[in-house]
Amino acid sequence: MSTHTSTDTDAARQHPVDEPPSGVTRRRLLGTAGAAGAAGLAVGAGASAGWAATRSEPEPLTSLGATRVPFHGTRQPGITTPLQAHGHLAAFDLAPGAGRTGAAALLRRWSSAAERLMAGEPWPGERAGADVGRDAGPSSLTVTFGFGRGFFSRTGLRSRMPRELAPLPDFSSDALDRARSGGDLWVQIGADDGLVAFQALRLLQRLAGEAARLRWQFSGFNRSPGATAHPTTMRNLMGQLDGTNNPKPQDEEFDERVFVPGDGSPSWMANGSYAVFRRIRMLLDDWDAEPLRDQERVIGRRKSDGAPLSGGDEDTAPDLERRRGGSPAIAADAHIRVAAPETNGGAAMLRRSFSFHDGFRDDGAPDAGLLFVAWQADPLRGFVPVQRKLDRGDALSRFLRHEASALFAVPGGAAEGEYVGQPLLEG
Amino acid sequence: MSTHTSTDTDAARQHPVDEPPSGVTRRRLLGTAGAAGAAGLAVGAGASAGWAATRSEPEPLTSLGATRVPFHGTRQPGITTPLQAHGHLAAFDLAPGAGRTGAAALLRRWSSAAERLMAGEPWPGERAGADVGRDAGPSSLTVTFGFGRGFFSRTGLRSRMPRELAPLPDFSSDALDRARSGGDLWVQIGADDGLVAFQALRLLQRLAGEAARLRWQFSGFNRSPGATAHPTTMRNLMGQLDGTNNPKPQDEEFDERVFVPGDGSPSWMANGSYAVFRRIRMLLDDWDAEPLRDQERVIGRRKSDGAPLSGGDEDTAPDLERRRGGSPAIAADAHIRVAAPETNGGAAMLRRSFSFHDGFRDDGAPDAGLLFVAWQADPLRGFVPVQRKLDRGDALSRFLRHEASALFAVPGGAAEGEYVGQPLLEG
Repeated sequence: MSTHTSTDTDAARQHPVDEPPSGVTRRRLLGTAGAAGAAGLAVGAGASAGWAATRSEPEPLTSLGATRVPFHGTRQPGITTPLQAHGHLAAFDLAPGAGRTGAAALLRRWSSAAERLMAGEPWPGERAGADVGRDAGPSSLTVTFGFGRGFFSRTGLRSRMPRELAPLPDFSSDALDRARSGGDLWVQIGADDGLVAFQALRLLQRLAGEAARLRWQFSGFNRSPGATAHPTTMRNLMGQLDGTNNPKPQDEEFDERVFVPGDGSPSWMANGSYAVFRRIRMLLDDWDAEPLRDQERVIGRRKSDGAPLSGGDEDTAPDLERRRGGSPAIAADAHIRVAAPETNGGAAMLRRSFSFHDGFRDDGAPDAGLLFVAWQADPLRGFVPVQRKLDRGDALSRFLRHEASALFAVPGGAAEGEYVGQPLLEG
Repeated sequence: MSTHTSTDTDAARQHPVDEPPSGVTRRRLLGTAGAAGAAGLAVGAGASAGWAATRSEPEPLTSLGATRVPFHGTRQPGITTPLQAHGHLAAFDLAPGAGRTGAAALLRRWSSAAERLMAGEPWPGERAGADVGRDAGPSSLTVTFGFGRGFFSRTGLRSRMPRELAPLPDFSSDALDRARSGGDLWVQIGADDGLVAFQALRLLQRLAGEAARLRWQFSGFNRSPGATAHPTTMRNLMGQLDGTNNPKPQDEEFDERVFVPGDGSPSWMANGSYAVFRRIRMLLDDWDAEPLRDQERVIGRRKSDGAPLSGGDEDTAPDLERRRGGSPAIAADAHIRVAAPETNGGAAMLRRSFSFHDGFRDDGAPDAGLLFVAWQADPLRGFVPVQRKLDRGDALSRFLRHEASALFAVPGGAAEGEYVGQPLLEG
C-alpha cells in the first residue's frame, strides 16, 4: 500500500474553507490527493539512519501544517470548519469597569490576534510563552467568539440582547457546576497542532488584560487527520461514531437551521449562530461493562460502522417504523430515535464536539467524555426540544452526566479591517 | 508551494523503527518523501464541495496513521522512537496479594495488549469503551513498561533490584507531591492519534484488574507530525527548542549512555534503560514577562532557531569558552552551560518529554509545563549529577517547579512469544 498526501498551499489560501458552497477543505484535499496519487511513490525500503540524524533536515509542511482557514468572511470560522485534532473552549467575564468601550477594544485585539495566528503569522511584539507555534504552519487554526447574557448587561446593551439567549431550561439529569458554566464571552479554539492551539489560548488570555478574566476553560481532542482510512465522522470516547445525522451543508435547510439569515434579527446577528456548550462526562466504566449488543441497542446504530439498526450503512436514513422479530429495529428509547428531527418537530442542530480526558477521579473512574458544542439558528428549535426529549426518554442518559452548560450568541464573521461583534458594539 | 507525504506501509512494517542503525522512521519517511516529491502534484484549485460531503468517502491512511512501531525487539519501544503527538504516563501499585505470580500474569496481559494495539489490531473480546481506536491505524503507538522500587519488595524480588534504583536525592527546588510520584509499575504510552493513545491507556487500566491499581496518570502532547517545516526538535511551552543537545543514536557513546549493555548487570536488565520522570510546571506568566533577550540569556540559545549564543546553528556545539564584549557568550548560569556534559563529567541522558496543560490554577496561572522523561544507563551518570548542578546554579530554575518525580527500571524488549520483564519474573 502506498498513500499520498498533497496540498497546494496557495490554492488552499485562496479558498475559504468555512463557506460550504465553494470551500476547499483539508479533508477534501487529502481525499483528492489520495486518489490522484494512486500511481504511487514507494519510499522507505532503502531508507535508513536513525531519528536524530534527520534533526536538521527540513521537514515538509504537509497539508496538516499548511492548511489555513481564513478569519474574515460572512460567517465566523470554526462552525463548519472540519473538526481539528485539538480544541480549547474558554469563557471570560468582563471586568466591572470595562464597559462597552473596553469590550470593543478587547474584541478588536482578539480579532486581530485571531486573524494573524490563523494566517500562521506571529503576534507583533509578543513575548515568549505565547510563541510556541512560531515555526508551525496555521495547522487549520480557528478562533470563534461568542457573547453570553452577562455581556449585554455589562456593556449597557441589554436592549439588543437576542431573545434566543433566554436561559436554557433545567433538565432533570443536569448536575451542573455553575463555576464552570455560563460566562460573558466565549472563545472556541481548534487546531491540528497542540502547540498552535495552546499558543492561541495563551495569547488571547494575555490580551484580555484588565478587561476580562478567565472564568472556565476546557481542553479537548479529536482523531488526527490521516489516522483513519474510514469516513470522517469522529468517534467519541464511547467508541461511537458521533455526528452521523448532522445537518449537511448541501441540505436544503442547512443554512436556515444553523445560521441566522443575513436579514435576520437582531441585525447584528446576521450570519451568526447560537452555540450550546455542555461538558458531558461519560460513565465509561459502566459503558464498557455493557455487551456490544446492548450498547448498540442503546444508541440504535451498529458500533463498527454507524449503520442504523434498521439496515443500510452509516449514510442510510434510520427507518424508525421498521420492525424486526416483532419489536422495533430501533428501540423506543434508542438515542437516535429520541434525538431524531422526525420525533422533535424537525428540530436539528450541527454538533461539533471535542472529546476530553482530564485524568481520573478519586474513585478511579476516568474524568472523560464530550465537550459537546451544538450550533443552531435558534436554540428553541435545536438543542432545547431535543435535550428535553433526551432528558425524559433516552436510554443513553444513564451513561452521561451533564456537568457544565453555557449558551452563546456567535455573531457573523468580520469583514477585512473589522472585528467580530463590531455591528453590535458600534452599531 | 506543493508538499508531499508518502510512505509504503509494508516497508515501514518490515523495518523496526526503534533500532537506530537500521530503523526507518516516520520522520525519515516524511523527509525522504518530501524531497522525492518535489516535482509536485497541484491539488485544490478545482476541488469543491463542503466538508460533510466527503463524509462517506474513504480518507487515505497517511503515514501518520499507517506507521507501526514493532513491539518485540531487543529494546522496548518508546525510547528512541520519534516523539508522538499524544502521550500518557501512568503509574500503578501492585495489590498486596498479587505477588510474583500476579505480577507475571499482569505483565503477560499488558505485553500482549501492547503488541496487538501497536500492530493496529483490536484486543480480542474487548468491550466497547476501549475500542475507540478501532478504525485508526497504529498511529506510531508505543507502550513501554517499567518497574519502581516497590515492585521488588511486593514480588519478593528485592535481592534482584538494581542498585541504579536507589532513591533519587532530594533537590532544594523540589516541591514534590508524593501521591503523584513513585509507583510500583510504570506505563508510558505515545501515539500520533489521541483516541489511539486513550484506548491504550483504558485497556491497560482495565487489564490491571485486581492485580494493580492506578496511582497517578498524566497526559501530554507534542507538535503534530507535518505541522512544521523546521527541524524535528520539539518546542516546549516556553517556546524553546528542547532536546537539541540530546545524545544521538549515531554517537559513539549513545548505546553506552542510554542502554544497559547486553551483558550488563543485573542480567534481566540487559538492553534496558532507566527512566527518570519529573512533572515540571513552568511559571509561564513569569517567563512571558521576560524580554526575549533575557530569555535567551537564561537558556544560552537563540529562541528562534536554537543556535547557541556562542554562534553557529542549532547543531553547532556550544563554545563555553567564547567571550563577547568582555563576558562569556553563554552566561555562567545559562541552562545549557550548567547542564552540559562537559561541566558534568560527561553525564548525559536522552530526554524525551511531552508538554502538559491541565487547565488553569486558582490564581489564573496555567497548570502547564513538561512531563520530563530522561533515559540513561545509570541515573548516577545521567539525571542525578546534572540535576544536582541545575538545582544549585541554573538561571532557568526560577521559572520551574518540580512537582512529581519517579524512577523506573525499564527492562529490555520482549522476544516473540515472551512478555516484558519475563527474565526477572521467571528467571
